[in-house]
Amino acid sequence: MMRLMYQFSNDLQQAQQRINRFLEAQFDEINTRPSPLADAMKYGLLLGGKRIRPFLVYATGRMLGADTAQLDYAAAAIEAIHAYSLIHDDLPAMDNDSLRRGQPTCHIAFDHATAILAGDALQAFAFEILTKSTALSAEQKLRLIQVLSHNSGVFGMCLGQSLDLISEHKQISLSELEQIHRNKTGALLSAALKMGFICSSHFADNALEAKLDRYAAAIGLAFQVQDDILDIEGDLAAIGKNVGSDLESDKSTYPKLLGLAGAKQKARELYVAAVGELEHLPFDTTALRALAEFIINRKN
Amino acid sequence: MMRLMYQFSNDLQQAQQRINRFLEAQFDEINTRPSPLADAMKYGLLLGGKRIRPFLVYATGRMLGADTAQLDYAAAAIEAIHAYSLIHDDLPAMDNDSLRRGQPTCHIAFDHATAILAGDALQAFAFEILTKSTALSAEQKLRLIQVLSHNSGVFGMCLGQSLDLISEHKQISLSELEQIHRNKTGALLSAALKMGFICSSHFADNALEAKLDRYAAAIGLAFQVQDDILDIEGDLAAIGKNVGSDLESDKSTYPKLLGLAGAKQKARELYVAAVGELEHLPFDTTALRALAEFIINRKN
Repeated sequence: MMRLMYQFSNDLQQAQQRINRFLEAQFDEINTRPSPLADAMKYGLLLGGKRIRPFLVYATGRMLGADTAQLDYAAAAIEAIHAYSLIHDDLPAMDNDSLRRGQPTCHIAFDHATAILAGDALQAFAFEILTKSTALSAEQKLRLIQVLSHNSGVFGMCLGQSLDLISEHKQISLSELEQIHRNKTGALLSAALKMGFICSSHFADNALEAKLDRYAAAIGLAFQVQDDILDIEGDLAAIGKNVGSDLESDKSTYPKLLGLAGAKQKARELYVAAVGELEHLPFDTTALRALAEFIINRKN
Repeated sequence: MMRLMYQFSNDLQQAQQRINRFLEAQFDEINTRPSPLADAMKYGLLLGGKRIRPFLVYATGRMLGADTAQLDYAAAAIEAIHAYSLIHDDLPAMDNDSLRRGQPTCHIAFDHATAILAGDALQAFAFEILTKSTALSAEQKLRLIQVLSHNSGVFGMCLGQSLDLISEHKQISLSELEQIHRNKTGALLSAALKMGFICSSHFADNALEAKLDRYAAAIGLAFQVQDDILDIEGDLAAIGKNVGSDLESDKSTYPKLLGLAGAKQKARELYVAAVGELEHLPFDTTALRALAEFIINRKN
């Protein structure tokens, strides 16, 4: 177990370094025409972050035999979508956060208009990146674009964020809370896994796809349950944003609906369900099992 | 000349009807899960608009022999991008407009957060639509996605909007003003033309592509010059937004830099340059010539 965790943090760090280098290289063309917009995009995209979604693309793709170079574009695109969503979520009209990863949020470091436009331009940047890989077929690239656009828009992430804002001062049920998080966080984590799958030669294996979907759904929800737990238990230094902000904003959370012990139990159950999907797969599932463990044990 | 204009308004109306029907049909899947987000997307996308960009896709594609059914997805995608940009441009942090096409803007009709998310989701919707057409090859679809993402992000529309906001209370030169508008408005109009071109069987003809690019650049700039002229000369009933709002916000415009007569002369020169590119093309260029004329003669 200790060896597993050690290996995982190594793997995660490698994925972080690789994706950061790759993302920076993608700015070479943009850098030829400096602008506050380009600076704000880089600020949102390159100043830290756990890079869980790129890790998921790399881990899934490599598990299925893809070359790492075939996975860079998908990993970069999904991180750009994640980065745009954070910039917009932090805006005063949305969650109104002034700190992210211990740094001023984009609209504080720049201004509101530039933050809105940086998010918009990062979304376009994500889809443009997906057209570029020379190591994938046109069909694979189109499927990547389809999955990322579908899961990040009104069928996924944007819907989840909208439902979350609407529910802010309301009593909602556990199933409503799950619906919010399956869209808000889960849809993009599922997309990451599916994008790794699409980049591999197994992309036509529907049974495998279904198993990976169920694994992704479980870790996606576990991620959010743990987020809610950390909002109560975490400390500012570790998580880089204001602790208790969910409680203050009167948001429905798993600890509120299930109690803190109940929320921890729920995270554990989701972990068990996730790793259950990986059993009997004819691949080395170490990285995905370690990620599931990381998600429910992380402190930030 | 009168016959030409008559024909054009007919063509434009047909394009409007066709794209409106097509866009509504694209909401069938979204409509199965009603939400304020979906309502705001529809509000921004389906409540009027001249549909110049879809018209350009249809007119260019048909001129080059493409079936109309091959053009619907590209026309819909570019209009969704245009609609998202209007929703975000109208936000208080940007142009702070409360009226658009004579109706309350999206953030007034809904709320700020929903308007931000509706814009975000419309962008994702645009790219998802481009993956769908069964009448185009995978290579054609990828090129459409590449052009639309490139021209709408930090290399085009978003950059132009950002430069425009930065220049608001500054004296800028004519060449800086042109740079703003070539990005802010021109990049998307160029994309519309290029997308029609890509959907046709001529998509490998580089000389033709260069001519169409120059035509697009000229009408794109003419469009903006005429917009500035209308901001002075137009009336509220015709243009559906507050007249003189550019003057009030201390924006640099063509009439300010060139005088009203100079701006009208500039629009005329751009018109002549645009139609000049269409000469000697072995296609029926009636629609594109009529559009250039419409752009500099329109009253709203």
